[in-house]
Amino acid sequence: MPETSTLKDRIENPELLAKVVPVEEAVKHVVDGHTLAISGFTKSGEPKTFLPALAYHFSQHAPQARITLLTGASLSEDVEGPLAPYIRKRGPYMSSAASRRRIHAGEMDFTDVHLSAFARNLMYGFYGDIDVAVVEVSRIRPNGSVILTSSVGISVEALTRAKKIILEVNTSAPDYTGFHDIVVPAVHPHVGWPLPVVNVRDRIGTPYVEFDLRKVVAVVESRTPDYPVPFKAADDTDKRIAKNVVDFLLQCREQYHWGKRLPPIQSGVGNVANAIIGQLYDSPFQKIRFWTEVFQDGMLRYVEDDAKFEYASSTAVSFSAEGRERFMRLFDRCRDRLVLRPMWLSNSPEIISRLFVIAMNTPIEVDIYGHVNSTHIDGSRIVNGLGGSGDFFRNAYLSIVHTPSTRRLKDGRTVSCVMPYVRHIDHTEHDIKCVVTEQGYALNMDIRSPKRRAQDIIERCAHPHFRPLLSAYLDMAGAGDEPRATDMQALNAWWRDYDEACRNFPKGG
Amino acid sequence: MPETSTLKDRIENPELLAKVVPVEEAVKHVVDGHTLAISGFTKSGEPKTFLPALAYHFSQHAPQARITLLTGASLSEDVEGPLAPYIRKRGPYMSSAASRRRIHAGEMDFTDVHLSAFARNLMYGFYGDIDVAVVEVSRIRPNGSVILTSSVGISVEALTRAKKIILEVNTSAPDYTGFHDIVVPAVHPHVGWPLPVVNVRDRIGTPYVEFDLRKVVAVVESRTPDYPVPFKAADDTDKRIAKNVVDFLLQCREQYHWGKRLPPIQSGVGNVANAIIGQLYDSPFQKIRFWTEVFQDGMLRYVEDDAKFEYASSTAVSFSAEGRERFMRLFDRCRDRLVLRPMWLSNSPEIISRLFVIAMNTPIEVDIYGHVNSTHIDGSRIVNGLGGSGDFFRNAYLSIVHTPSTRRLKDGRTVSCVMPYVRHIDHTEHDIKCVVTEQGYALNMDIRSPKRRAQDIIERCAHPHFRPLLSAYLDMAGAGDEPRATDMQALNAWWRDYDEACRNFPKGG
Repeated sequence: MPETSTLKDRIENPELLAKVVPVEEAVKHVVDGHTLAISGFTKSGEPKTFLPALAYHFSQHAPQARITLLTGASLSEDVEGPLAPYIRKRGPYMSSAASRRRIHAGEMDFTDVHLSAFARNLMYGFYGDIDVAVVEVSRIRPNGSVILTSSVGISVEALTRAKKIILEVNTSAPDYTGFHDIVVPAVHPHVGWPLPVVNVRDRIGTPYVEFDLRKVVAVVESRTPDYPVPFKAADDTDKRIAKNVVDFLLQCREQYHWGKRLPPIQSGVGNVANAIIGQLYDSPFQKIRFWTEVFQDGMLRYVEDDAKFEYASSTAVSFSAEGRERFMRLFDRCRDRLVLRPMWLSNSPEIISRLFVIAMNTPIEVDIYGHVNSTHIDGSRIVNGLGGSGDFFRNAYLSIVHTPSTRRLKDGRTVSCVMPYVRHIDHTEHDIKCVVTEQGYALNMDIRSPKRRAQDIIERCAHPHFRPLLSAYLDMAGAGDEPRATDMQALNAWWRDYDEACRNFPKGG
Repeated sequence: MPETSTLKDRIENPELLAKVVPVEEAVKHVVDGHTLAISGFTKSGEPKTFLPALAYHFSQHAPQARITLLTGASLSEDVEGPLAPYIRKRGPYMSSAASRRRIHAGEMDFTDVHLSAFARNLMYGFYGDIDVAVVEVSRIRPNGSVILTSSVGISVEALTRAKKIILEVNTSAPDYTGFHDIVVPAVHPHVGWPLPVVNVRDRIGTPYVEFDLRKVVAVVESRTPDYPVPFKAADDTDKRIAKNVVDFLLQCREQYHWGKRLPPIQSGVGNVANAIIGQLYDSPFQKIRFWTEVFQDGMLRYVEDDAKFEYASSTAVSFSAEGRERFMRLFDRCRDRLVLRPMWLSNSPEIISRLFVIAMNTPIEVDIYGHVNSTHIDGSRIVNGLGGSGDFFRNAYLSIVHTPSTRRLKDGRTVSCVMPYVRHIDHTEHDIKCVVTEQGYALNMDIRSPKRRAQDIIERCAHPHFRPLLSAYLDMAGAGDEPRATDMQALNAWWRDYDEACRNFPKGG
């Protein structure tokens, strides 16, 4: 049973125990111009003590310092917020309001990269030298190899490539020994090898990370547990979307002769994702498997039901406060039914394709031809990044983009999430097999022109309030297999009509 | 040494020899509403006798007939043109003017799919039942298994899935025994397996295709050789693009410590591709390997030089009339240095990623942020399809999009191939690492905001004549990390200025 421990319990290597210093000392290893690669994925396993201390250190001693910060995925605002003023370059994913403001203002350079590609690019040297790796661990083994905590992300690549290493031993985290499956990607001109994963549960690496101990310049203690993620219960719209997703899967089961075996599920994060996970639990599917990025609240009930659930693979666990309590109760069961892998493996195109993964993600908006905007509001300002959505959509057996058909803005307008065109495209029509809203679902799986597909998406997925306008656009677009309106005057008029429709959206619509 | 043979030489199985019928009889097996899956890839290995005969049959006896036609990639106009009026649905790639007209007019439904995905979708049943497979072969072995000809494409999936099979034995084709590496993709709920290819030369299947002989309803003879593809010598612009590509590769060799080993090259088809292949031949790189879709004219000189060349893998060979003669002279050498695979393998994300393939393709246009339009003129009318460009760009170690900076239209205007935004996106900024024109190259490999990347693409890749306009767009776009102009009036004015600049492009520019 995991418990809070002392630092001495957790550091079994005397050489590294001797390197324990106060965090105020450790932060001095990071200076202006450095590139940091750190642990952390969806707010799990981040260096929760080191980064805020580094921000404080800069504020006191080096307010002009600017660094490059590379992570697995998002950090919590408590960790990234204070450091944001000192970040000059950032990748490959963030959800910090402080960083976002600086990115939009052009003060922080953010590069949005497929997560699987980012981890490999890091190994290839595309991002240059890594000056310092900062990685949260739950235990240091006698030979100095480490056991990570609640996420893997890019921790392994960071420890492998960095010139200096700082380990943050989290004594409040449980000992995660047995959760991880650690493998380093091959780098040209070395020969790449097939990844021998043919089932979700297959482990192909080690449960610990090996690296060059001589590079460790400091070890610090952290007693801060992972920050909880918000959990919002599914509303009626979420539930209707979830029902449509499961209806689609049941149709596929018949049509493509799956038998009882549902292909492994990749699920995004958020209300709709949670609603789908709930709906799947109540579906006829048994022995469900998740091959996904994040193991989250909705999946915990599966762990308690061996008929319903077989196995899960992800790169992080991420819970609400309540979910975390349940996870701790189920810790040993989870270790037997869940594996945490580096994000280049959890998001590997090779494995996603081989396992016939069913991919699902929520976008900002889709268009009538099936192109997807996952990242940029108004096409100009990034929200978080595309994360692993492209890794999964592109290589999935079935790729499902699900969204409410409308979204209410703060200014009172209600906009359509099904648009004639989207102003930023992260996923093309070629990668999307099914569009789902609370209204229904439309397929892009058969031999059909984009124009016919558009009629279908409008009729089945768009909100009835916006359907006439979308059809009007299609008429205006004219000839071609995938027509776009090019008459700027007509287009202008269309946008005016649309804006009016957004204002006139019926209350409770 | 391959020679033209008699039908009896080529059909060693008595049961199938007994099924030889005149093509006028064989075509009767195809009726209105049928789905045909056939051999053929970039005009190689297509059923050159059957399809025109089928078109003639429909014209005489069933002018209302409409079929679905699925291929590997493009057919020659001699083959597809006459049949086009009878095709209702078409996928996944075509370059027929007759089909294109019908597609734009909405009379033919065309679905544009990544080639690797298309072959697998076919096996998964996503395109429904295949009524008839028509496959060109060079030989039928004693046990009835077949040796294909100059391409593989979807021939294997067609023979595996079809209800009825028609074999077209091409006695004018050489006996291609030993060229092919045949494997069928796994289908859920069967377990997928790792593809054991770790070098370009690794063969993992059989040199012949096995299938259910009872499904063969007819065997026909063909004496028509593959139609030659046009070959245009590289002009000055092509050569400057090629030089910039090779300069980029030489820079990478230094920066990423490749040593002498160039990662395998994927090359598109056309002048620029041929210029690059030529420039590589004159570069310091040795033991070059191609992992690509089509083995073409420019690669033949490599086959004669064992210091320069190691091995090639593709799904088709495709030559000009002159190239074909040279290929025939080098036939035995080619068999030892070239393998033809099904297109799901030649374009497999798993293998492209593992082998660190360097992908290169020519688009219609790119935008300043690195988004690529490969398929739609004016965003509305498809040209050919995206083919394997997405398979390669997305999974490559390095992805290079190369294009002349300008293109002269028939109406006399010269347009910029580097645009503020493209009206159809087939490949997103996330998948492109380098943009190359005859002006220079710009990278998308480091941590940099799209806006900074745009300044770089404008300065290094756009034609000097269009640079001020592109910079003006960027200024007009305003704030955000990847800003887009949304003021319709300003945008309108920009397009007017652009149109004028296209008209004023200096002669000999």
